Amino acid sequence: MIKELTVNLGERSYPIYIGEGLLSEIGAYFEKHGIGKGSPLLIVTDTHVGPKYLKEVAGRLESAGYKVAAHTVDSGEKSKSLAVLEDVVATALEAGLDRKSTVIALGGGVVGDLAGFVAASYMRGIRFVQVPTTILAHDSSVGGKVAVNHPLAKNIIGAFHQPEMVFYDTQTLQSLPDREVRAGLSEMIKHGLIWDAEFTAWCEENAGKLVGLDSEALQHGLYMGCSVKAAVVSKDERENDLRAILNLGHTLGHALEAVAGYGELLHGEAIAIGMVAAAKLAVKLGYPEHIDTVTERIFRKFGLPVRIPAHLDTHEIMRAMMHDKKFNEGKMVYIIPTDIGKVVIDKNVSAESVKQIVNRMKQED
Amino acid sequence: MIKELTVNLGERSYPIYIGEGLLSEIGAYFEKHGIGKGSPLLIVTDTHVGPKYLKEVAGRLESAGYKVAAHTVDSGEKSKSLAVLEDVVATALEAGLDRKSTVIALGGGVVGDLAGFVAASYMRGIRFVQVPTTILAHDSSVGGKVAVNHPLAKNIIGAFHQPEMVFYDTQTLQSLPDREVRAGLSEMIKHGLIWDAEFTAWCEENAGKLVGLDSEALQHGLYMGCSVKAAVVSKDERENDLRAILNLGHTLGHALEAVAGYGELLHGEAIAIGMVAAAKLAVKLGYPEHIDTVTERIFRKFGLPVRIPAHLDTHEIMRAMMHDKKFNEGKMVYIIPTDIGKVVIDKNVSAESVKQIVNRMKQED
Repeated sequence: MIKELTVNLGERSYPIYIGEGLLSEIGAYFEKHGIGKGSPLLIVTDTHVGPKYLKEVAGRLESAGYKVAAHTVDSGEKSKSLAVLEDVVATALEAGLDRKSTVIALGGGVVGDLAGFVAASYMRGIRFVQVPTTILAHDSSVGGKVAVNHPLAKNIIGAFHQPEMVFYDTQTLQSLPDREVRAGLSEMIKHGLIWDAEFTAWCEENAGKLVGLDSEALQHGLYMGCSVKAAVVSKDERENDLRAILNLGHTLGHALEAVAGYGELLHGEAIAIGMVAAAKLAVKLGYPEHIDTVTERIFRKFGLPVRIPAHLDTHEIMRAMMHDKKFNEGKMVYIIPTDIGKVVIDKNVSAESVKQIVNRMKQED
Repeated sequence: MIKELTVNLGERSYPIYIGEGLLSEIGAYFEKHGIGKGSPLLIVTDTHVGPKYLKEVAGRLESAGYKVAAHTVDSGEKSKSLAVLEDVVATALEAGLDRKSTVIALGGGVVGDLAGFVAASYMRGIRFVQVPTTILAHDSSVGGKVAVNHPLAKNIIGAFHQPEMVFYDTQTLQSLPDREVRAGLSEMIKHGLIWDAEFTAWCEENAGKLVGLDSEALQHGLYMGCSVKAAVVSKDERENDLRAILNLGHTLGHALEAVAGYGELLHGEAIAIGMVAAAKLAVKLGYPEHIDTVTERIFRKFGLPVRIPAHLDTHEIMRAMMHDKKFNEGKMVYIIPTDIGKVVIDKNVSAESVKQIVNRMKQED
């Protein structure tokens, strides 16, 4: 059964399709969405996902009558660079992509961000389709935030560029390594924590099924996670205010990733720690105690880290946070849970309180 | 006296100010436009313009209470690259630019395009102000098309990102070399040819004054040129249809620049040849003879080239045109004058007719 939901953004609205075995029908979906056959398509994928699914996706599209080119980048965060973007654009030019062409992001968050920014900037913007192949990408593939990294900062060069559709074949998730499954589920839990107490409780109850990649549980969880993301993005496409709540756990999470060196902590692991920290900060600010206990209990249930690796330097973590682009004009902005399923954007959190929490989370068990 | 006009684009509308000595008032204009002082500004300029005006502009803004950083790139087309963009972003990060910061493009078209794309992509888009210092830039600074080049194609990586304002101090034009003055006036004449027969006649009558940088003539000409650009852009911001008329002379012009190697022909010179070619093509297609005679006469009056340098290879010129991104899905699109002050977008021009014109323009005197 195929689940469908819509990201409502006026004339930039688009559907998200979630289903098992969807990839085999990708040609029909492209036709249904009016993607013309006169201009070539470009599939961007990586060395991890490409060998598994590129042949099938390209083949299905070619069978439907599309001209298809492909570009495979190295898997991993390093491919989110301007140098790699230049390589992808070379392939696009050689394949003759024009203003009516479509770029297809086949892979996880790195491929989605890179291919999305290629689509946003090639000839000043062409269409693109997200084909996420990880659980984590249920988050990044929805909402149109695309970017590459700069040697000095993550995601600093990018655009808001909404896809034509998100095309989510849950079968591609079956081959994910266990650690990536758990880390990916971290963003799903986040969508519960910021928006929906009932869904949060469902996640906790179904932790075993989700980690075990039970098909039905996964489809429901992804559908609910995408729904929250879509609801938030629909209300604030360009992150003027509300959308910042999606950054729950990310301020500290990004800092931990940066200080640990990308790779030691997966993104989903780093933000799990960040969400536990935000819960502790909430209690410190006077919000109910159970926010902390429930948040930590859930992440433990999913086998995700809830403490800061002891060898990371507090000063470096704090410095990394102060450079984070979510700090606006010198003030420290923090997403604080006020209950399970509810958060506020607090623009006056003192760096000192955060530092105390960081230190405590390194010392505790 | 300061001339002011508005580019009407709904909530993205912005003013163009044209006047002599305007730079001395830049601080007051920034305040008037609500550009806050809590976030640093970044001036992007080049090695040609920076030594002349950077100190004054930075000084005026600092006197008004702004924090100002600056980045100077090498003058010339080579600075429109992703590598240089990465350098500018490094300066932006080091200076602490945030989402409320503004980028200032101080220079000609290269600086405007580069700095504009920095502004379009830094943190997914911050504000920018165009401070053009060439005549040619009266065209490029209006309309929000920003981009960098790829080794395989010009302007292929970019965005539509409208400035907050265009701030045009005509005093900065007084130091332009004569050849650049003439080449810059080529875009001004284009704005007459596509839109306004009366303005075209005025340009021809005032050729001497314009080339001689007469202050009053220059201000009127720039005002009229910007008005045409603004009118066209207001009707079609993202170049879905009408905006393509601004490409009169550009299809062949770009090809000539590419084949000659950037530098032999200035952009304004290349498009002058392109506009004469379009006029000859028009007559070949059955439009009135005077289109050709008047067009060629005007460009001769401004001392601009009206023939294709004989050593350029026709086959290479044609190949360069067929790769031009204005050719959509294999069909050749050409902007054809149907009278002085009127053009149409002809999507069915045969490459063979164009080739005949190219050959003729190489052989004729």
